[in-house]
Amino acid sequence: MSERSARERILDAAHQLVLQRGFAATTVDAVLAEASASKGAFFHHFPSKAHLGRALVERYAEGDAQALETAMSAAEAETDDPGEQLVCFLRSFEEGAEAVLKIQPSCLFISFIYETELADAGTDDIVARSILHWRERILDKLEQAAADRPALRAVDLPSLADQLFTVFEGAFLLTRALGDKDAMGRQLSHLRHYVELLVSRG
Amino acid sequence: MSERSARERILDAAHQLVLQRGFAATTVDAVLAEASASKGAFFHHFPSKAHLGRALVERYAEGDAQALETAMSAAEAETDDPGEQLVCFLRSFEEGAEAVLKIQPSCLFISFIYETELADAGTDDIVARSILHWRERILDKLEQAAADRPALRAVDLPSLADQLFTVFEGAFLLTRALGDKDAMGRQLSHLRHYVELLVSRG
Repeated sequence: MSERSARERILDAAHQLVLQRGFAATTVDAVLAEASASKGAFFHHFPSKAHLGRALVERYAEGDAQALETAMSAAEAETDDPGEQLVCFLRSFEEGAEAVLKIQPSCLFISFIYETELADAGTDDIVARSILHWRERILDKLEQAAADRPALRAVDLPSLADQLFTVFEGAFLLTRALGDKDAMGRQLSHLRHYVELLVSRG
Repeated sequence: MSERSARERILDAAHQLVLQRGFAATTVDAVLAEASASKGAFFHHFPSKAHLGRALVERYAEGDAQALETAMSAAEAETDDPGEQLVCFLRSFEEGAEAVLKIQPSCLFISFIYETELADAGTDDIVARSILHWRERILDKLEQAAADRPALRAVDLPSLADQLFTVFEGAFLLTRALGDKDAMGRQLSHLRHYVELLVSRG
């Protein structure tokens, strides 16, 4: 088995364990057992548990940025109007919620935001940069959409851009707390509806 | 010092530590040091760390239910219209966000939803009941408001009621991740605005 695959196996196992129990409660031994990897392989790739945490968050943020671009490109292919593009973009997350929950029962960021154990390993910066990247990409569309929509210009657009993060994370918690896999899509539908109302008011 | 005050000191210390680092990473020793309490006092009140967790979540859920009633009663005193009452109710959280963040930098529920260590101590049920209590109270108003508002009736009302939990929790994470204490109020303002638009459309 290649070195890369051992590294990926460790990251995949750690990812699942952190989603299940949080980072602090995830031991290196549990990760090794889940990944069928040796301690030697682990420390070859990750000098410490903190390094593993950082690599996990980096990988997650990259996947997250790709998901953003995929959804935005699809929306841009649908329509030329930035306001309608945003509604399409939000609808794609709403419609994809069930598929997302099958792959990940929660969001890795929640653990790293809530547990401060890792703050010194730089994960805070990666999470914040990821949030701001989504904000910028969505804000850009909102500003374009607001150019000919006075009602939309009356709304605070940067915080509206952040609503997707807020609703996603809150909905992960709601879904998990209630054990209701439909909750995620329903919560996202309200954000889509809100933006739809703002965009349609002109 | 009375027994009660030792118990409260332990709960207060544990509360702050869990908000800072999560439940798994909060050791009994750290709680004792923070509370200036003895191991004997701790185990007199809490036979195990799991019992402490359960007591913490119970106390938090009680405070949460009181906050709901306080805000709803104030809104009911403002106006007789259920739709306007809801807007008032949501506005009170929006306007109180800064004060809430001064008392608590995050929400205790997040740790207990995310970390499964405590699932066997019944905290899951307390959290779920608390969420459903808020849903029922808000849904009741939404249904009253929808009676003479067809546009509101077209919206899925139970999930709209859950939006307050979703936005609150997501906004706690956003606020913490960005270190931006104004983020909470801004996120809540969008939920208030959305409900305002739905209510005013009739």
